[in-house]
Amino acid sequence: MSCNIAIAGVTGAVGQEFLRILEERDFPFSSVKMLASARSHGKKLTFKGREYTVEEMTDKSFDGVDIALFSAGGSRSREFADAVKKAGAVMVDNSSAFRMDPDTPLVVPEVNPEAIKDHKGIIANPNCSTIIALVPIWPLHNANPVKRMVVSTYQAASGAGQAAMDELALQSKDILAGREARCEAFPYQIAFNLFCHNSDLKPNGYNEEEMKMVNETRKIFSCPDIAITCTCVRVPVMRAHSESINLEFDSPITADEVRELLSTAPGVTVLDDRENNRFPMPIDADGKDDVYVGHIRQDESIPDNRGINLWVCGDQIRKGAALNAVQIAERLV
Amino acid sequence: MSCNIAIAGVTGAVGQEFLRILEERDFPFSSVKMLASARSHGKKLTFKGREYTVEEMTDKSFDGVDIALFSAGGSRSREFADAVKKAGAVMVDNSSAFRMDPDTPLVVPEVNPEAIKDHKGIIANPNCSTIIALVPIWPLHNANPVKRMVVSTYQAASGAGQAAMDELALQSKDILAGREARCEAFPYQIAFNLFCHNSDLKPNGYNEEEMKMVNETRKIFSCPDIAITCTCVRVPVMRAHSESINLEFDSPITADEVRELLSTAPGVTVLDDRENNRFPMPIDADGKDDVYVGHIRQDESIPDNRGINLWVCGDQIRKGAALNAVQIAERLV
Repeated sequence: MSCNIAIAGVTGAVGQEFLRILEERDFPFSSVKMLASARSHGKKLTFKGREYTVEEMTDKSFDGVDIALFSAGGSRSREFADAVKKAGAVMVDNSSAFRMDPDTPLVVPEVNPEAIKDHKGIIANPNCSTIIALVPIWPLHNANPVKRMVVSTYQAASGAGQAAMDELALQSKDILAGREARCEAFPYQIAFNLFCHNSDLKPNGYNEEEMKMVNETRKIFSCPDIAITCTCVRVPVMRAHSESINLEFDSPITADEVRELLSTAPGVTVLDDRENNRFPMPIDADGKDDVYVGHIRQDESIPDNRGINLWVCGDQIRKGAALNAVQIAERLV
Repeated sequence: MSCNIAIAGVTGAVGQEFLRILEERDFPFSSVKMLASARSHGKKLTFKGREYTVEEMTDKSFDGVDIALFSAGGSRSREFADAVKKAGAVMVDNSSAFRMDPDTPLVVPEVNPEAIKDHKGIIANPNCSTIIALVPIWPLHNANPVKRMVVSTYQAASGAGQAAMDELALQSKDILAGREARCEAFPYQIAFNLFCHNSDLKPNGYNEEEMKMVNETRKIFSCPDIAITCTCVRVPVMRAHSESINLEFDSPITADEVRELLSTAPGVTVLDDRENNRFPMPIDADGKDDVYVGHIRQDESIPDNRGINLWVCGDQIRKGAALNAVQIAERLV
């Protein structure tokens, strides 16, 4: 089966990755509409050897479209959701707009693909840090329920878009040349520095990014009671997120068992070479589909061998965003 | 009282910081010996407006010395410990050589100054990440015992010395210019990347840096049973470490109580501005004496309000090394 697709926000970092991934995976499409804001209207793009013209996204853009891949920000997703549904298309939305809506499936294809069929016109792509954490945690949770997760993230600039990656490069150049760092994409200096995630703070003191990990994980795992706490941090890395994950399981589990479970898990590459102290790094995951996992250790601070520490790296733009959405679209086709 | 001091490893990053801190704090000395390896013999240094000549460190270097501040690596500390003791001097050692030796006090002056008096010629300075974590944790632990700590670090290049800081700058320049990153001080690319700490791995899969946090904390707190697990990571930051710290307490404690306790704690600056999403960053702590603490939140994943998340930043070369050692020396005088 082949389908008509639209890409909303096609000129952004995730939009551009949509195109690369659709091409790489030979996604079965009949037509592609390249949609963006008025600013990019008329811009030319090459996709699979053919030239396309970017169109301004309007309510009429979705006539005849089957699947609309959205990565244009939450307000654009909200603005065009009705138009997409009225056109009979399905929106696969990378924004946070509908993630916690009870009528919208929130899907990591390696975890809960069965949720896709319950959609009412919108399927939400989870937050990047959540996807990257859950791909390796799910097969463990299935073997031995996770009772509690303590996560600290090391998040790449790409999570704030292409402008943030450009800012990291420019600030680095300026600082190395003895000039002052100018902050536009980020509120604080990102080059040779790091800071708690700059998303809005909730009344409980957690930023939105931290609460996404908590709430989205509960929804994706269908585990409303799983205990999760998270600290989200921006680091001067281009496009792969890293996460330090501490897991408390229901029953005893060893590092060897975890390694064994992960070695056959879909979407996971185990890179856990103790002899050479060689574990995942952002530059390993950069441009790759899999989530890399290593530095797998028994957490000796939890009794009865029920604790495990993991270190994971995943490409924020690919598995953290565009790839996960395309995988959802593949299951829709 | 004034004393004769020696600085072993004076040409290194920590050695240079010893000089700056002794000068800033107007440390009461009668004489200073500048000691280093044969390579630096004859080099000139200015300290408090006077020129000094670096001497090669030998067994005879400690005659007449009262306090020897060591930061020349563990093997040099081991090599010269007997000479220092024979000369009647006290070694304040920044290396890991004697930290876990039962006869050697391991001291953070804000935490366990009383241990200093039990020395038998050597006092050990804890590992940088340990000091930076314990300065703010101690006043909390005193008010309400900490049962378990889960720590993830974001460690600056300076922990591996001046050469590592230079490498971070050089690699950044090379990568920005499209050249390949050359790795000498670190085994892996540090610019725009990060990696699990490159210290030796123990049979349990933890690296030495991670086990230092576990073992040193137990010794400094005189709490052999405190549960601790740690993930140590090198990040592309120059000289201040950050740490994401999750604490489980014996009894209920609120974020407000923690903020209150820390607001009067020695060596701590609370920077916890939720309204402006302004929490500690490495560039805040850079060159500062205090450990900065913020993003203080109730950990809702621990029942009965017994959990707290903290975010801390501290200068690795100052409080993480040279300042802590000078504070110990001040108490010896």
